[in-house]
Amino acid sequence: MTDPRAAAEAVLAHVDANLEQSLSRLEALLRIPSISTEPAFAAQCRAAAEWLRADLQGEGFEASLRDTEGHPMVVAHDKAAEGPHVLFYGHYDVQPVDPLDLWHTDPFEPVRLVQPDGETHISARGASDDKGQLMTFVEACRAWRAVTGSLPVKVTMLFEGEEEAGSPSLLPFLERTGPELTADIALVSDTDMWDKQTPSIVTMLRGLVGEEIEITCADKDLHSGMFGGAARNPLQLLSEIIASMRNPDGSVALEGFYDDVAELPPEVAEQWKRLPFSDTDFLAGVGLSVPAGETGRTVLEQITSRPTFEVNGMIGGYTGDGFKTVIASKARAKISFRLVSGQDPDKIREAFRAHVRARLPADASVTFHAHGGSPAIAVPADGPFLNKALGALGAEWGREAAIAGSGGSIPIVGAFKRQLGMDTLLIGFAQIDDRIHSPNEKYNLTSFRKGIRSWVRVLAAFAQR
Amino acid sequence: MTDPRAAAEAVLAHVDANLEQSLSRLEALLRIPSISTEPAFAAQCRAAAEWLRADLQGEGFEASLRDTEGHPMVVAHDKAAEGPHVLFYGHYDVQPVDPLDLWHTDPFEPVRLVQPDGETHISARGASDDKGQLMTFVEACRAWRAVTGSLPVKVTMLFEGEEEAGSPSLLPFLERTGPELTADIALVSDTDMWDKQTPSIVTMLRGLVGEEIEITCADKDLHSGMFGGAARNPLQLLSEIIASMRNPDGSVALEGFYDDVAELPPEVAEQWKRLPFSDTDFLAGVGLSVPAGETGRTVLEQITSRPTFEVNGMIGGYTGDGFKTVIASKARAKISFRLVSGQDPDKIREAFRAHVRARLPADASVTFHAHGGSPAIAVPADGPFLNKALGALGAEWGREAAIAGSGGSIPIVGAFKRQLGMDTLLIGFAQIDDRIHSPNEKYNLTSFRKGIRSWVRVLAAFAQR
Repeated sequence: MTDPRAAAEAVLAHVDANLEQSLSRLEALLRIPSISTEPAFAAQCRAAAEWLRADLQGEGFEASLRDTEGHPMVVAHDKAAEGPHVLFYGHYDVQPVDPLDLWHTDPFEPVRLVQPDGETHISARGASDDKGQLMTFVEACRAWRAVTGSLPVKVTMLFEGEEEAGSPSLLPFLERTGPELTADIALVSDTDMWDKQTPSIVTMLRGLVGEEIEITCADKDLHSGMFGGAARNPLQLLSEIIASMRNPDGSVALEGFYDDVAELPPEVAEQWKRLPFSDTDFLAGVGLSVPAGETGRTVLEQITSRPTFEVNGMIGGYTGDGFKTVIASKARAKISFRLVSGQDPDKIREAFRAHVRARLPADASVTFHAHGGSPAIAVPADGPFLNKALGALGAEWGREAAIAGSGGSIPIVGAFKRQLGMDTLLIGFAQIDDRIHSPNEKYNLTSFRKGIRSWVRVLAAFAQR
Repeated sequence: MTDPRAAAEAVLAHVDANLEQSLSRLEALLRIPSISTEPAFAAQCRAAAEWLRADLQGEGFEASLRDTEGHPMVVAHDKAAEGPHVLFYGHYDVQPVDPLDLWHTDPFEPVRLVQPDGETHISARGASDDKGQLMTFVEACRAWRAVTGSLPVKVTMLFEGEEEAGSPSLLPFLERTGPELTADIALVSDTDMWDKQTPSIVTMLRGLVGEEIEITCADKDLHSGMFGGAARNPLQLLSEIIASMRNPDGSVALEGFYDDVAELPPEVAEQWKRLPFSDTDFLAGVGLSVPAGETGRTVLEQITSRPTFEVNGMIGGYTGDGFKTVIASKARAKISFRLVSGQDPDKIREAFRAHVRARLPADASVTFHAHGGSPAIAVPADGPFLNKALGALGAEWGREAAIAGSGGSIPIVGAFKRQLGMDTLLIGFAQIDDRIHSPNEKYNLTSFRKGIRSWVRVLAAFAQR
């Protein structure tokens, strides 16, 4: 076969020359209202899966639908190439469209809207999340085949139809189908760029420990006139426990919490100093001005590379209109920890429970309820796939690609690591203003075009020895 | 007229000899379903008022109904006597009866149920709260007239029909009618005895400051994956503020909170050491075992003579089933202070607001909403009416009457003090197990009989120079 690097320029030219056809295919997929959470749209979900299967089959993949308890999976293979094997994951299902009256155009009739800055928005439900993004990869493969007759690396694709519904069928499917899907690296295109000019690869995902605690004191709600003063108040106690979780410097006051916390790799720390990021702008976007996390850490660190404790919900006593002089019997809180590389979710959960138990006075009891736990995930900062992808993105966008962390967890990445032993590179071209999950979702034409071109370059780079 | 002390023995004998007739009258009143909170029972409320008016008129009072915006007031006067003037207050309205299926007998068909210990329970809605109690006073007056032809003191009675509905018409009525009602002392019979053998006079009522606070940080709810660490969490902040309100020794950590707190009068403190009260039993009744209030204070002090801070309700973030990794924009709490003699509600409210404001970091704002404020009320522990009443009760029950505090506030007492300049003695004969506001409410026959006899003696004592 042709040398991939040499061929890449021709493939890129083909992408540009055939962009209208690529767009038309995306628009055909966007017209299928594959809303996974609404049972009435089950047939449309299957139709979207079938559209993808047929498109991939026509392009040259061996593609099939795989039935699950829910919506079907699409699996496609082309392992003819000599090079390494990549697994590309995306999802063909979309969010519901309510409230419909806030849409300026039909969510399932894509339109191209030219913006004052010259950008074109492809507006439709799923344009960005995730049909537009997954088609960047599909179109890159098509262009490779059109120009060179083959793909530069072995490619497997996996598209699910339940991502917006919590992916209930995914883990069982990975368990059944693992060896067929296992590749050298997984690629996911469901994330944002660093900013409109700067591509990014997310290589760090924080883990999560979710926990619900309920504190009980008296065996019934009490009148604060009759018992106030003598009766233990579980809301007071819960407040004191929550307060005890945080040091004045913003760090988490849980014994051993930072014992296993890895510092940011030096090359990433260095890069973050160079990358454009404004603490002020980031916080101002939500009405804040001062970072509230650990003193001495940047906002980027606070939200991606440092672990946290958060109260996510709290309730107890009388919370309706007016006033009721009650001392509640029970008080509840939902709390969570975001974990970073090195921290063990089970150990953190146990440390938290011990922290709470140690602060319970007489007459107070507690019950705990676990709401999921997953470790942080990090792709080695010096891995060969990462470095090649960084180079490819840099070449396409004309500036250094960011090595980014995501503050939240993306369950599929953990599943690939645990169940298939694969690292994942998250390479997405969405913008923060794409309004995913909201009315008037859009995907920039630049994201689509340069996203396809980026994958052309990434695959070429991976094929290189 | 006859010397009241000398006549009292004959009046007491008359009470006992005519108890069946007294009971029949109470039962007639109990048959009227005067539920004030349910509009469908408005006519029955008026019927109960009219029943009382007619009964008092027949007995010799000058009695009338006074219309209000809601249910009518009953006002009755007999100011023929030489002695001091008392205003007796009670309420003829009753609580709703739901859930009806938990009643063993018809709530509005009173029955006399003999108990294993020989006590008879008068079972009906309102038997204890407050028809049975108010009729002890009415019957005592009747007995005085029957035996001596007159009352030993000037008597005004005021019965309202909206006490269970928050007394909306009472303050406007007091404003309109004040001078007509003003007496030397107010008497209220709507409280419990200390225990089954020990009568009590409530002379201390804690005041109340109710306050709602809402803390806002970001201008919208945030995803804790994206912002966790850098964004100020209002639930964390609110917890820290609530925690800061309480010292490790259980005292309230508000600046100046104890500055104006009066210590218990020494004679009351002395008496409380003698009175039967079990901390253990009191707390065990609600599933607790250890007093949670100020170290070094007894439970009686903690619940009646010491001020408190309580969280009555708190809410924020996600509180439904499952889990949501949200950082709330807002968190709310309802809090209250119970005040004791000397504390100024306005001053305490301002001190609290200053305490909260001083703890607000950047990006956090707070709004306060006042939910009522009233000072504590205390009848002078050495007042002549109190001392005479204590003596009368002691004589009837054969043991020292308790000078009690009530942890809660009773708004009518504050209104009498503020609007009419009168002190109030709260003398009730209810038992803690009377199930007021619940199914199968009852009043002990002993409470009724010895309640009437107690008032006979109290009026005699008041008439004494």
